[in-house]
Amino acid sequence: MTSRTFMQNYRQNYPLKLPHILQDLVSLDLEQDLNESGEEDRRIHEIFRNLTKQPVVRFKNAKNVVHKPLRVGVVLSGGPAPGGHNVIAGLFEALQKLHKQSKLFGFLNGPSGIIKNNFIELQSKQVEEFFNQGGFDLIGSGRTKIETSEQFQAAANTMKTLNLDGLVIVGGDDSNTNAALLADYFIAQNIETKVVGVPKTIDGDLKNRFIETSFGFDTATKVYSETIGNILRDCLSQKKYYFFVKLMGRSASHIALECALQTQPNMTLIGEEIAAHKLTLQGITEQITDLVCSRARHGKDYGVILVPEGIIEFIPEMNKLIKELNAFPPVQSNAMCDVSVPEVLSIDAKKCFKLIPKEIQVQMLLDRDPHGNVRVSQIETERLLISTVESELRKRADAGLYKGKFSPQPLFCGYEGRASFPTNFDCQYCYALGYVAALLIDRGCTGYMSCVNNLIQSVDNWRIAGVPLTSMIHIEERLGIKKPVIKKALVDLKGPTFSYFQNLRQSWVLEDDYRYPGPIQFFGPKDVTDIVTMTLYLESQSTPKGIQKSPQESLLS
Amino acid sequence: MTSRTFMQNYRQNYPLKLPHILQDLVSLDLEQDLNESGEEDRRIHEIFRNLTKQPVVRFKNAKNVVHKPLRVGVVLSGGPAPGGHNVIAGLFEALQKLHKQSKLFGFLNGPSGIIKNNFIELQSKQVEEFFNQGGFDLIGSGRTKIETSEQFQAAANTMKTLNLDGLVIVGGDDSNTNAALLADYFIAQNIETKVVGVPKTIDGDLKNRFIETSFGFDTATKVYSETIGNILRDCLSQKKYYFFVKLMGRSASHIALECALQTQPNMTLIGEEIAAHKLTLQGITEQITDLVCSRARHGKDYGVILVPEGIIEFIPEMNKLIKELNAFPPVQSNAMCDVSVPEVLSIDAKKCFKLIPKEIQVQMLLDRDPHGNVRVSQIETERLLISTVESELRKRADAGLYKGKFSPQPLFCGYEGRASFPTNFDCQYCYALGYVAALLIDRGCTGYMSCVNNLIQSVDNWRIAGVPLTSMIHIEERLGIKKPVIKKALVDLKGPTFSYFQNLRQSWVLEDDYRYPGPIQFFGPKDVTDIVTMTLYLESQSTPKGIQKSPQESLLS
Repeated sequence: MTSRTFMQNYRQNYPLKLPHILQDLVSLDLEQDLNESGEEDRRIHEIFRNLTKQPVVRFKNAKNVVHKPLRVGVVLSGGPAPGGHNVIAGLFEALQKLHKQSKLFGFLNGPSGIIKNNFIELQSKQVEEFFNQGGFDLIGSGRTKIETSEQFQAAANTMKTLNLDGLVIVGGDDSNTNAALLADYFIAQNIETKVVGVPKTIDGDLKNRFIETSFGFDTATKVYSETIGNILRDCLSQKKYYFFVKLMGRSASHIALECALQTQPNMTLIGEEIAAHKLTLQGITEQITDLVCSRARHGKDYGVILVPEGIIEFIPEMNKLIKELNAFPPVQSNAMCDVSVPEVLSIDAKKCFKLIPKEIQVQMLLDRDPHGNVRVSQIETERLLISTVESELRKRADAGLYKGKFSPQPLFCGYEGRASFPTNFDCQYCYALGYVAALLIDRGCTGYMSCVNNLIQSVDNWRIAGVPLTSMIHIEERLGIKKPVIKKALVDLKGPTFSYFQNLRQSWVLEDDYRYPGPIQFFGPKDVTDIVTMTLYLESQSTPKGIQKSPQESLLS
Repeated sequence: MTSRTFMQNYRQNYPLKLPHILQDLVSLDLEQDLNESGEEDRRIHEIFRNLTKQPVVRFKNAKNVVHKPLRVGVVLSGGPAPGGHNVIAGLFEALQKLHKQSKLFGFLNGPSGIIKNNFIELQSKQVEEFFNQGGFDLIGSGRTKIETSEQFQAAANTMKTLNLDGLVIVGGDDSNTNAALLADYFIAQNIETKVVGVPKTIDGDLKNRFIETSFGFDTATKVYSETIGNILRDCLSQKKYYFFVKLMGRSASHIALECALQTQPNMTLIGEEIAAHKLTLQGITEQITDLVCSRARHGKDYGVILVPEGIIEFIPEMNKLIKELNAFPPVQSNAMCDVSVPEVLSIDAKKCFKLIPKEIQVQMLLDRDPHGNVRVSQIETERLLISTVESELRKRADAGLYKGKFSPQPLFCGYEGRASFPTNFDCQYCYALGYVAALLIDRGCTGYMSCVNNLIQSVDNWRIAGVPLTSMIHIEERLGIKKPVIKKALVDLKGPTFSYFQNLRQSWVLEDDYRYPGPIQFFGPKDVTDIVTMTLYLESQSTPKGIQKSPQESLLS
């Protein structure tokens, strides 16, 4: 049986469009009269000595633009996001169009491929086979960071050895910060390699006034919304379970918010709201328990609750507890069952610790990372909440305040959203991002992020730009050391997406106003195959639309 | 925002075909010259006194067939399976075609709706809205069984009160056994209601020489294969995790086998094979560990392993342990950490118990159902195996036999496959099953299962029949009581599907010959939207095809 599916072949042959402006790529040149610029944190001058006050760059048609053959490297950094292969395809194709003798090198298995000078020269046939496909497996990915001066030196050597004109770094906030540092370092070392970043993360938290969305968010939220829709329908058919669905997304709750709008479950926790209201674990538990009790009074012993993965870190007291535990040596494993509350903890932390179910207490005491820290990402929040809600329900049942049957089911929507076939949107978007990255290198820009916007319009009308990475970077002090970081875009509690959600959510508590988006479609009617996320749509509107009619509908009408 | 998605509307309006023979429904009558009959377990005569030696019925065009208005009830029993709403739609439409004054009543929330006479009269508009939709939520489902003589009497009263000509029971093996018992009881009570069953279960274990597949299996395996394909691609992109994917399916491993053929992961456990080879938990653990070690020697610290949910019950020693524990009173919860091996256990059971990780030991000792039995379905097999493999790897690492990094990730593919939008195949199949159920009632057949076959051919050429339920029923003695049961069809280790898998699987251990089926498509090329499962395809071939070429390809060429 062949390992290549029909779907892979159909997707490979699915034709993509280019934005109008990119259709005559070879005649594009930088606009000279620029007055747009990113705001810069003044302190970044100390770190980026060679890379400040760069303008946003735009392109226009010009005459007699000359292109030389380019040698470019590309690296995929961090967790996969659907569309990565199309960044490579767009980059490859654009480089070929700009000059037939251009070459593209793929660094293998993430930034460690740069450090070790481990690469392949990409050939047209390979790139085609991965066109519109999921995953990052053409060249692999990895989480190694280029941090030490030895690593910077090694990267510089690789650039020199391969004689690269450009390096494209496809990654999230950290990787793009790294891209800026490399760009700055290369200038300082008189290395000609231009560094360009591409905004990747399914979490959707790499965005700003120039970057409308990171790639992968569209596909991942649709993969999860399919599953959540199916779970909602199962829930309503059987009327016997409470599903606690944990959604991937470490810091921001964009994924949970988007999925909530797509599927309308009974409750969705939003980390940023929990932090803003300084909710405690007990407080969250009570909110969920209130919902369970009030649904039980309406004869409904079932429901679906969305829980963002990163919520733990948004609960102030949990954060405090974790910090205190990190200072407390892990218990030895022969003391497996000695889960008495550690005496060293503060009163608040003790109170919080007591609420946590035994298995997770044990995990927090025993299971530490190499630095001795509690492994926060390993804490199964959905199971933690099931346990705290169960005990709160027992109390209420004892007090005669709850009569119902609580059958919880944990579920995690995670890895399956990162490497799936990209939606038509992510295919198009990544393809264009790859083109723009090639163009930026061709026009000699370094320390830029490839930028495609106007994304809620048809592909024809998409606009392109290069945005200086330094305009996104802030300085944070960590342990006395000034560190440049691209700030993660958290859910804006006053923004249009959260407001839209806020206006609707109360009606979802008791009504089962569930939505079933179904599986991602690639062929068929455009309003099924090509619709953008609610998040992108709402954030692209200057005046948010009314909430009675689906804005997606008006978008497409 | 409207709660109805574009997808729901498109699916509602997706036109279905009827098999040729059903296109002139009103002229169909029973064939008289039948010599086909099911084999019957002789002992069933004692239980089904009014319902034996019924022939398989087929249909032919006849002249002047007279139809009277029919009053029919329908009930959905057990867990949802994609396509249930189309059974109702087909049934409704066929009843209307047979006689405009016919009525269809839907019993609410499963068989308890029959007992309580809780129903709605279905209207054309409602039925249309649920056409081609997932879930069982039009009338709900439930697991109540009609078992006691009071319940039988209540069901009979409901039939009389509603004056029903027919009752259609959509369910799995248990529900269809129940359908036969009700049919027999109604004859004995001189109740005119004809009882017809419809084969539903995503598990795929309700099949025999007449029933080619149960509905829902096609969709559920495709939903899971999408997820597994995504996980495989994530795995190959990151090269850092071992995913242990548990698949729904309590008894038989058909789902795991089908998903294995669709996605080609590194290893797939098959419960029936474990039972046949009397594998122990330690034996399975060693097989998986061998795979991990041999991949590590090739530099691969990642992989995907499929684990059928029901595997626990196929491991002879685990079965023995569970039986012994069931006889042993549950430990009180204040003894949470007293997980010393219970003295009462036999030597074998003790050995097995010691292998089990602490959390699951605790669970087995404490968490019992109302009868005091260990909750087998609550045991998270994927986590159990992760834990036993981890400790086996530690031993091998200590002995210098393994150098690698083992980062396991558990995953469960379950509920989301039961209520999703049905594939085109399940839409068509269920629609036809509903039609045949109506026809069987119209022609006065009781104690039959609606049967549509020749399913690998185009819908036009599908054939229809009624198969006597008693021909599927065997007698099993449980605690001295003779119980009629429809035997679950387990994976046949000499059958074409397992043989096909067996020929290929060795090459999947080290090679990453992963397949990515992608999400279910409803629109677009037929070989993506309408392809049948490998299981159905292979089992429908008299002579299995060679293994070099995808049989699905030859099917479609």
